[in-house]
Amino acid sequence: MNNTISELIKKISTANNIYIASHVNPDGDSIGSILAMALGLRKINKNVNIIKTDEIPSDYLFLPNIHMIRTYDIDEEKDPIDLLVVLDCGDIDRLGKFKSIVSNSKFVINIDHHISNSGFGDINIVDEQSAATGELVFDLLVGMGIQIDKEIATCLYTAISTDTGSFSYDNVTSRTHEIVVSLINAGIDKSDINIRLYQSRSIERTNLFISSFSTLKTYNDNKIATVKVTQDMLKKANAKMEDTEGIISFIRDIKPVEVACLLKENKEKEIKISLRSKRFVDVSKICSAFNGGGHKRASGCTINESINDAERLIVEQIIKMW
Amino acid sequence: MNNTISELIKKISTANNIYIASHVNPDGDSIGSILAMALGLRKINKNVNIIKTDEIPSDYLFLPNIHMIRTYDIDEEKDPIDLLVVLDCGDIDRLGKFKSIVSNSKFVINIDHHISNSGFGDINIVDEQSAATGELVFDLLVGMGIQIDKEIATCLYTAISTDTGSFSYDNVTSRTHEIVVSLINAGIDKSDINIRLYQSRSIERTNLFISSFSTLKTYNDNKIATVKVTQDMLKKANAKMEDTEGIISFIRDIKPVEVACLLKENKEKEIKISLRSKRFVDVSKICSAFNGGGHKRASGCTINESINDAERLIVEQIIKMW
Repeated sequence: MNNTISELIKKISTANNIYIASHVNPDGDSIGSILAMALGLRKINKNVNIIKTDEIPSDYLFLPNIHMIRTYDIDEEKDPIDLLVVLDCGDIDRLGKFKSIVSNSKFVINIDHHISNSGFGDINIVDEQSAATGELVFDLLVGMGIQIDKEIATCLYTAISTDTGSFSYDNVTSRTHEIVVSLINAGIDKSDINIRLYQSRSIERTNLFISSFSTLKTYNDNKIATVKVTQDMLKKANAKMEDTEGIISFIRDIKPVEVACLLKENKEKEIKISLRSKRFVDVSKICSAFNGGGHKRASGCTINESINDAERLIVEQIIKMW
Repeated sequence: MNNTISELIKKISTANNIYIASHVNPDGDSIGSILAMALGLRKINKNVNIIKTDEIPSDYLFLPNIHMIRTYDIDEEKDPIDLLVVLDCGDIDRLGKFKSIVSNSKFVINIDHHISNSGFGDINIVDEQSAATGELVFDLLVGMGIQIDKEIATCLYTAISTDTGSFSYDNVTSRTHEIVVSLINAGIDKSDINIRLYQSRSIERTNLFISSFSTLKTYNDNKIATVKVTQDMLKKANAKMEDTEGIISFIRDIKPVEVACLLKENKEKEIKISLRSKRFVDVSKICSAFNGGGHKRASGCTINESINDAERLIVEQIIKMW
């Protein structure tokens, strides 16, 4: 990795115009990582631009310099990008409508922690042992001799905390906690960050959670649990489908539950299903039976039936593949 | 502190029979700390006994050597205790029916992180800067040259993680994360511990949560939120009053909420009230109006009225003291 990093440092030092981007449906790790990288490079007087590939969830609008993430009108033919840094993005398609910028950039650095990363960069720093891309950004900035100030540390703490379920997930290593020591020592306001990340559920989302929880059903000695979100429930709670995030964790966290299932009614007869497992069931196999997929512990698929029929079909499949 | 520690080491090395105890209503920090201390002292061939001052919540029964915490028939007159180590216990009363053992011990070591600690020991190691008593136990064991093995580390990780809301509370310092680095390097099964601590809510408790959430009411532009647990709800969910733990956090975590209130109907006209605040309201002052008290961000009191009247009274008081 050391050769790669010195090549990367050389590339950055000679680049005039640097663009940074991450995936659509951005999360804490992608937003925290691109901001930290941009703030770091700005400290060594680079002209940095962050491309807004998608809307930023309101949870993250508190991050310092969030306005740096903005829409660019990139006329690629006229003015090709010197250096593009893509963070936390497994493949080009996840850049959404901006995916063409990869082929229209003179040089691409791809930094990620997803095991599935396609290696689309000219330099690829992909380390699936890292709990978050934020950890890789930390190591790179430190490796480049850039001081981790309070603003950078706030972004990286957000990246790492959100991608590890506040340091509780399996992906956390002792290195994760070592990095957090440095971030805290940089003077971040941990209390404020944690209130904003974890104590800021909107009233609308809360009401959606409560009505969804009340649909809880369990099967197979409580080993399988389902909850639903219908269009009617969204309307009554004045919530959006993205407000469902967090519902499935509440269900998975029931002691006997091994497989948790959330059924989301996108429209009548279009039911998006999320599955989570706790210890041993490979839910990606269950979802592939409905042309979906994902990871062993978190997968999804769509069933074009009514929400009650979709529930029956997915539960049957879970039991069949147990 | 170094003098104190060398005195402590001398006391422990000369003691034949060591007893360890902690507070009633034990939590993860108290149970993890006493077990870790006992396992550490056993490694240097001390005869260690842990006094069970109260029932152990089922969440913690997975901890290694939990059977070491047991009921003793201590005939104090005949056989006074050589050395008593009290952990995570602010004052003698919190030892419950075992409080007399303090005066019946030849020497008492008091190790705690509560700012209110009364200093009842012959040696007092009280550090309110520590996020958990588990941090102090870690430092002491390391200071005594005792190797932190996997079992000790499992107990200390549980102590620290539970007392910090999985490293998200304000009390966390960079030292907290430094200690966790050592605990992870001792080979703990983080994944298993976190599933047992945070993904093991019983079905009964889950059903109680859901029915309690459905009583959510908000006041003052959603700045105040209340939920209730009645005897009827307990019966329907087949749950106990201790299963209410966690309900108030869900309510406090609503974005506009500054003060969250849980009303628990112990019996008709005996309503136990818990208050939590997020950023600035001192809820101990509100509770003291009803002869209760506690901390700025977490307090409690009892109102001897019907649950609906108690709700009206406490909300009026919150608004009055805002």
